[in-house]
Amino acid sequence: MRNAYHEQIDALTTRLTTMTRLVQTGMDQATTALLDADCEAAYTVITSDAVIDKLRHDTVERAVAFLALQQPVAGDLRTIVTSLQISSDLERMGDLARHLAELAQTHHPAVAVPSPQRPGVLAMCATSLAMAAKAGRVITSKNVAMAMELRTDDEAMDRLHDEVFDQLHDGEWSHGIDAAVRMALIARVYERFADHAVSIAERIVYLVTGENASSSALRDQARLRPVIAVGAAGI
Amino acid sequence: MRNAYHEQIDALTTRLTTMTRLVQTGMDQATTALLDADCEAAYTVITSDAVIDKLRHDTVERAVAFLALQQPVAGDLRTIVTSLQISSDLERMGDLARHLAELAQTHHPAVAVPSPQRPGVLAMCATSLAMAAKAGRVITSKNVAMAMELRTDDEAMDRLHDEVFDQLHDGEWSHGIDAAVRMALIARVYERFADHAVSIAERIVYLVTGENASSSALRDQARLRPVIAVGAAGI
Repeated sequence: MRNAYHEQIDALTTRLTTMTRLVQTGMDQATTALLDADCEAAYTVITSDAVIDKLRHDTVERAVAFLALQQPVAGDLRTIVTSLQISSDLERMGDLARHLAELAQTHHPAVAVPSPQRPGVLAMCATSLAMAAKAGRVITSKNVAMAMELRTDDEAMDRLHDEVFDQLHDGEWSHGIDAAVRMALIARVYERFADHAVSIAERIVYLVTGENASSSALRDQARLRPVIAVGAAGI
Repeated sequence: MRNAYHEQIDALTTRLTTMTRLVQTGMDQATTALLDADCEAAYTVITSDAVIDKLRHDTVERAVAFLALQQPVAGDLRTIVTSLQISSDLERMGDLARHLAELAQTHHPAVAVPSPQRPGVLAMCATSLAMAAKAGRVITSKNVAMAMELRTDDEAMDRLHDEVFDQLHDGEWSHGIDAAVRMALIARVYERFADHAVSIAERIVYLVTGENASSSALRDQARLRPVIAVGAAGI
């Protein structure tokens, strides 16, 4: 039977997964706002970002209260500290979705993305959403092998980002400087969103293994052990 | 007489101020790398960023050890949690300086910034350095009024950023699309660096007052009380 102590740790995990879902929806709707000059979608993203910020604030307050009242040690203490770090990543992911929504608003009624760039933006959006969803599953499962996959996913995002930049060179781009600058910033936002998903995964890897996810030894270990089951208390 | 308990909290503050100095030097040298195509400066920034990352990692480890062994409550607990958040801001500021250094490396032996944009870049660098230095003083002094000043400083940075973007419009820009995209990204990096300085200040404001720095009531309060002296233990 779970007691209040573990229920409070579980509640932190639940809050993080709620935030993860909100940043996914935010990025999805921000992309709609960008591609369809959809002001209603943009407005929803901006409203939702305020909810994410509030959830982040609550996460910090609950974590501090838990530390003060329960004085956890060892794994539970690290779980709380990690949840604080992850909530910060999720807050920034929400901010990035809001940036795109605001960009869509600024250009309304014009569409911010030139037609030939729509497939690239859709691909970056799809990769972002898949990575955020996977980061959410890593938060609940603490699955190290799944966490390590996000590095590979991020390489796919980097390629999509580079493809956008490849199209922006002098002589190849026919949509003017304003659109080139806009596309560069849009691509950078998706890339950073993905970076935060990787960062979340790496925090879980460190929580579970005590090793940085970037160490090659750990990458080998993850390949050898596809699923590592870990402690019951979620994060 | 200060005991080991307070010495450990002070050591966290000292670590943060060391990180603050390193990110200032990093941004200064990254700007040199950008403006003078100075590969040695770029290399120094990249090396220094690894030191900043290591200091950040150590900060987290020491904070977790302190929480586990000393089980602080109330103000000291919040000080530790805030130091974790600030170390994360500083790590990202180091990353941003590294991005500029890498951009300078990519374009070497060419200079990444067109001549007419040099004054704008120098102005953004000067503002960035001043803001990081002030954030460092806020960390040690916990001076709320000084912390609130960073919001105004950030408005100056936003204006410098907007001036760069104003020059990038179609018909006014004569340096090609590559340079336009590069200048947009460079300006964005300085703006984000400054945002993190503001974020550090806001975390101190919240630590000291329990109120978010963005609330108008608090801004009025800061104007009325130019210096608010706070607890002895630094952060």
